[in-house]
Amino acid sequence: MNAAVIGVGYWGPNLVRNFSKHPTIKKVYCHDVDGERLSYVCREYPTVEAVSNYTQILNNPTIESVVIATPVGSHFELAEAALQKDKHVLVEKPLTSNSDDAKKLVELALKKKLVLMVDHIFVYHGAVKMMKEIIDSGEIGEVMYFDAVRINLGLFQHDVNVIWDLATHDLSIMNYLLQKKPIAVSAVGVNHFNTLEDIAYITLFFSNSCIAHIHVNWLAPVKVRRILIGGTQKMIVFDDMETVEKIRVYDKGVDVTTKEGIYKTLIQYRTGDMYAPKYDTTEPLAMLTNEFISAIEQKSEPITNGDAGLEIVKILEAAEKSIKNKGAIIELRDGL
Amino acid sequence: MNAAVIGVGYWGPNLVRNFSKHPTIKKVYCHDVDGERLSYVCREYPTVEAVSNYTQILNNPTIESVVIATPVGSHFELAEAALQKDKHVLVEKPLTSNSDDAKKLVELALKKKLVLMVDHIFVYHGAVKMMKEIIDSGEIGEVMYFDAVRINLGLFQHDVNVIWDLATHDLSIMNYLLQKKPIAVSAVGVNHFNTLEDIAYITLFFSNSCIAHIHVNWLAPVKVRRILIGGTQKMIVFDDMETVEKIRVYDKGVDVTTKEGIYKTLIQYRTGDMYAPKYDTTEPLAMLTNEFISAIEQKSEPITNGDAGLEIVKILEAAEKSIKNKGAIIELRDGL
Amino acid sequence: MNAAVIGVGYWGPNLVRNFSKHPTIKKVYCHDVDGERLSYVCREYPTVEAVSNYTQILNNPTIESVVIATPVGSHFELAEAALQKDKHVLVEKPLTSNSDDAKKLVELALKKKLVLMVDHIFVYHGAVKMMKEIIDSGEIGEVMYFDAVRINLGLFQHDVNVIWDLATHDLSIMNYLLQKKPIAVSAVGVNHFNTLEDIAYITLFFSNSCIAHIHVNWLAPVKVRRILIGGTQKMIVFDDMETVEKIRVYDKGVDVTTKEGIYKTLIQYRTGDMYAPKYDTTEPLAMLTNEFISAIEQKSEPITNGDAGLEIVKILEAAEKSIKNKGAIIELRDGL
Amino acid sequence: MNAAVIGVGYWGPNLVRNFSKHPTIKKVYCHDVDGERLSYVCREYPTVEAVSNYTQILNNPTIESVVIATPVGSHFELAEAALQKDKHVLVEKPLTSNSDDAKKLVELALKKKLVLMVDHIFVYHGAVKMMKEIIDSGEIGEVMYFDAVRINLGLFQHDVNVIWDLATHDLSIMNYLLQKKPIAVSAVGVNHFNTLEDIAYITLFFSNSCIAHIHVNWLAPVKVRRILIGGTQKMIVFDDMETVEKIRVYDKGVDVTTKEGIYKTLIQYRTGDMYAPKYDTTEPLAMLTNEFISAIEQKSEPITNGDAGLEIVKILEAAEKSIKNKGAIIELRDGL
Repeated sequence: MNAAVIGVGYWGPNLVRNFSKHPTIKKVYCHDVDGERLSYVCREYPTVEAVSNYTQILNNPTIESVVIATPVGSHFELAEAALQKDKHVLVEKPLTSNSDDAKKLVELALKKKLVLMVDHIFVYHGAVKMMKEIIDSGEIGEVMYFDAVRINLGLFQHDVNVIWDLATHDLSIMNYLLQKKPIAVSAVGVNHFNTLEDIAYITLFFSNSCIAHIHVNWLAPVKVRRILIGGTQKMIVFDDMETVEKIRVYDKGVDVTTKEGIYKTLIQYRTGDMYAPKYDTTEPLAMLTNEFISAIEQKSEPITNGDAGLEIVKILEAAEKSIKNKGAIIELRDGL
Repeated sequence: MNAAVIGVGYWGPNLVRNFSKHPTIKKVYCHDVDGERLSYVCREYPTVEAVSNYTQILNNPTIESVVIATPVGSHFELAEAALQKDKHVLVEKPLTSNSDDAKKLVELALKKKLVLMVDHIFVYHGAVKMMKEIIDSGEIGEVMYFDAVRINLGLFQHDVNVIWDLATHDLSIMNYLLQKKPIAVSAVGVNHFNTLEDIAYITLFFSNSCIAHIHVNWLAPVKVRRILIGGTQKMIVFDDMETVEKIRVYDKGVDVTTKEGIYKTLIQYRTGDMYAPKYDTTEPLAMLTNEFISAIEQKSEPITNGDAGLEIVKILEAAEKSIKNKGAIIELRDGL
Repeated sequence: MNAAVIGVGYWGPNLVRNFSKHPTIKKVYCHDVDGERLSYVCREYPTVEAVSNYTQILNNPTIESVVIATPVGSHFELAEAALQKDKHVLVEKPLTSNSDDAKKLVELALKKKLVLMVDHIFVYHGAVKMMKEIIDSGEIGEVMYFDAVRINLGLFQHDVNVIWDLATHDLSIMNYLLQKKPIAVSAVGVNHFNTLEDIAYITLFFSNSCIAHIHVNWLAPVKVRRILIGGTQKMIVFDDMETVEKIRVYDKGVDVTTKEGIYKTLIQYRTGDMYAPKYDTTEPLAMLTNEFISAIEQKSEPITNGDAGLEIVKILEAAEKSIKNKGAIIELRDGL
Repeated sequence: MNAAVIGVGYWGPNLVRNFSKHPTIKKVYCHDVDGERLSYVCREYPTVEAVSNYTQILNNPTIESVVIATPVGSHFELAEAALQKDKHVLVEKPLTSNSDDAKKLVELALKKKLVLMVDHIFVYHGAVKMMKEIIDSGEIGEVMYFDAVRINLGLFQHDVNVIWDLATHDLSIMNYLLQKKPIAVSAVGVNHFNTLEDIAYITLFFSNSCIAHIHVNWLAPVKVRRILIGGTQKMIVFDDMETVEKIRVYDKGVDVTTKEGIYKTLIQYRTGDMYAPKYDTTEPLAMLTNEFISAIEQKSEPITNGDAGLEIVKILEAAEKSIKNKGAIIELRDGL
């Protein structure tokens, strides 16, 4: 099987590296509008073949799959063209810059019976998979909240604001881990240097009392990558800045009893052991590359398929609409 | 000068201790509706005299000042009675449970020429004072954002939700440090065990592009007490969980230049030294006690006077209104 | 039962507080050569009665037990006098300034059938007790090493060097936790400001390949309080600077297999979950006070009895001798 | 200029990568006794040419410099052969497995007027260079102690014990930073799995009251890489596990005054700001590669020349001798 990687800026080279070393992939082709960058990456990965023109890739019938790692604005056009040419497509997150485009891609892939997958990289992180197992097992009880902080200094993106850039990660983790999907979103954001928001706060509402909140910030002096998940029985902290033991499970909670007298309810705290489960430390992008190639070979749906990508785009779109409307609640119709 | 402390539950004993050892205070009286608790505290501080009835305190002309550390709902009634009896009053935060009451107290104290002060304890913390000096000096440039996280497991309050309990601290720090006052507020909150919100997110808007955000949570497995203040020149982190060096000042920022070509603006990151300034480590409550007694003696206004307390109550009230209205923006009229 | 606390400098007031609130103790007497300090402490604890003369305490038959928290040099004389007067004795660590004195006290207490106990406070720390349970259960396998670091800036002691001051803690933890006793000691130390060593490194040898090492330092810019215990199956970290979760148990180890070929042994690393067990967070000094009073009431031996105190003094004495002899190995005869 | 890298196991590939991208180097040759490993590395770096035989490299007059990254035991033989063939030589640390060999290399290089350099990588770390500047400026006063901890689980070396493997780093940092050289060494070590020590403690003595101590351990459950340097004016912490701000300078110290009365000396603590200076974050190995090539071009001595390598080997040799003699003090003659 041959593959082509389109766009080799910041993230593309990692895709090139992983596809190059995958045993199923015979040859990796590579394209970028920036010829200098293209030459540089091909020198770094000498087995890769540079192609100066996307049309050549589209017209090459030996290339079965296309990986798109260009700026978000070009995802739809490039992915659509590849699907039209019967190629399986893996698109860098977020899938597209609006939900209409995402829907069109999902439908086109369905019609063409092709794999459409989005690079929600954290879904393939061993620590996230471990959290999924823990939550699915019922160990932490019902999820009461999901709180994510993803802040640091830079890198400002030129075509998308901080939510399309950073919050995509937390939303994809949230959608993967939680059994329920959000029903509405509210967000506020501010911009300080150009028209793109550099700080934003997103709140997500569910059909029950669960709440999710995401803080993304390109202007923070310290790097924080932390997700708290509060269950009725236990609570999880995922701290991606730890070098090892990124997940900690706390046997902590609140017990409520009804008691006659002054206070209607009596709240008691429960605290027990904490543990840090071992998890698979395989490079997430290697897992994702496998998932994409397996889906093609086995004609199966990848975990982060087009629908998963569409859901995130819908939320991002709603969040952006909310920002423009000063935090107004935007319902996520169609059950996400 | 004699003083009386009303309410010796969780925080009251600390007030008793600080007033007892202040050289200006001759005698400390003490009252609590819970007789058992009252006896216990008086055994711990044997120089203190228990009084079984608030009226006795009010009617005792040798008691010049009253310190109110009861549940929020009773602040107004107790403070008003004390002011009426010509006593100076120090009230535990928040000043009252609504802004109308707070205004009445401010007006009454003004009319009676008495000191009305609120226990915004963090304003008297050496680290907060140091941040004030740094910000006032212009060292960090203009403030772009103020982001506070105050989370841990418990202690659930019985009469107020998590914002009246915890966010009061961050709001009082914010109002003390920033030169501008917020013009509007939006908040969301959820409750899981009774009718009082246990998790909330508050956003504050200013007349410029500055934004403030406060995350308070009684259900978190880890204790976080961290404020980030992003200036155009430098940024500050105040981490109250550090045992020493609670403040760190980062010489980090973003420089924007306009450049012809593909991107309209070119954003560059600037990073330099970090430093942790030494600050006064005197117990904040000792500083606050001093401030209260000095204000009485010198007929001056304390930093956290009735107006400072009223401003915080207005914001809390607006935040609560916003929560009831699903995050609707509530304007803070009258210029706060 | 009445008790007397002799010496109310840095640590004494904590003993006064704990004995005062113990239900079995009727009255606490208090003495210090510094009359001003004595008055101050008695004002802080008004139920305590100051005694200006140690002889009065010795001659008061209603005082059954004496707690000695004076500088180390005076421990022996004061403790001996109290035992002679048929009083049970609790001595601040280290028990005495040399092993001959310690032996005499042990023998005298035995003869008089009195309780002689030393304040090895960490033995009563919930985290240390939990480590004892874990080690005794066999969970970590055989102990390969015990490594302790106890460093910070100050407080310089005036009568003893850094090992008598700080290493006593780690030695008492070590002796309590490990099933074997050290057979020899080597130590180096340096002094920079007077004749007392302010930095020292102590190595302890056992009859097997286990090794223990203690680093104590009064001149460190950061405070570190950390013990590593490496077992053949698991390893423990006790970090006393953590506010919660002070103990972490790591399922980590090394497996050795013999393999033909280039290398004689093949070493493989094993890594699994980490967990932080919950432990009793009662104040250690309250536990210790209980232990002392129980021992008197039940005529039993306290965990940190005179022999335990003697063992530590022997090691300290040997370590000091080694320092004077440039690190020469000093054997700990008599099987400690 | 052409270069050859001998040995491409764990560290060699990093040397290959840095020499390959250096502008002065035209071609990089590569050799390893393990043909499979050699092929693998040449696939990763396709511009590199594999050579199956060291003699071919020695006999190739176009190869001016040889980089030796083989196990320690083979350093001398390979380096000597290369120097004999008039090639400049860079040797992985430690320079050789004994000081006689190291001296022979130094003399040979001197005679042949060739560059002989040792890969003491930390000397080229921006954080270490920054510490050198701070210490040389006199800012921290006189150094009172140097304390290093370098512990983690594995990697066990097959031919050298933990001091030759890990302590080399700390010794080379120490010798680079301190103005004085150690005059004697004492060390203890234990082995648990084969004949090579896996835990060791090294103490270094100086002609003044300065002391240095190094703790190296292959059996620790946590990774610690920390050096404390205590000066009479300020103190430095170098924590290599921090991702940023690896150096912190503490304005802390002790002031001693003589006072009449009970205590002969009065010790007071001084504490001020802490700061984390920015430093050059260029990859240390790139800096080292530059240093080697510059030394060749400019016929100058590199910082970590043969003499620097010899000094470390002398200390390691003495430390090993001390371990065999149960910690006996071994003098470092010839003024190191």
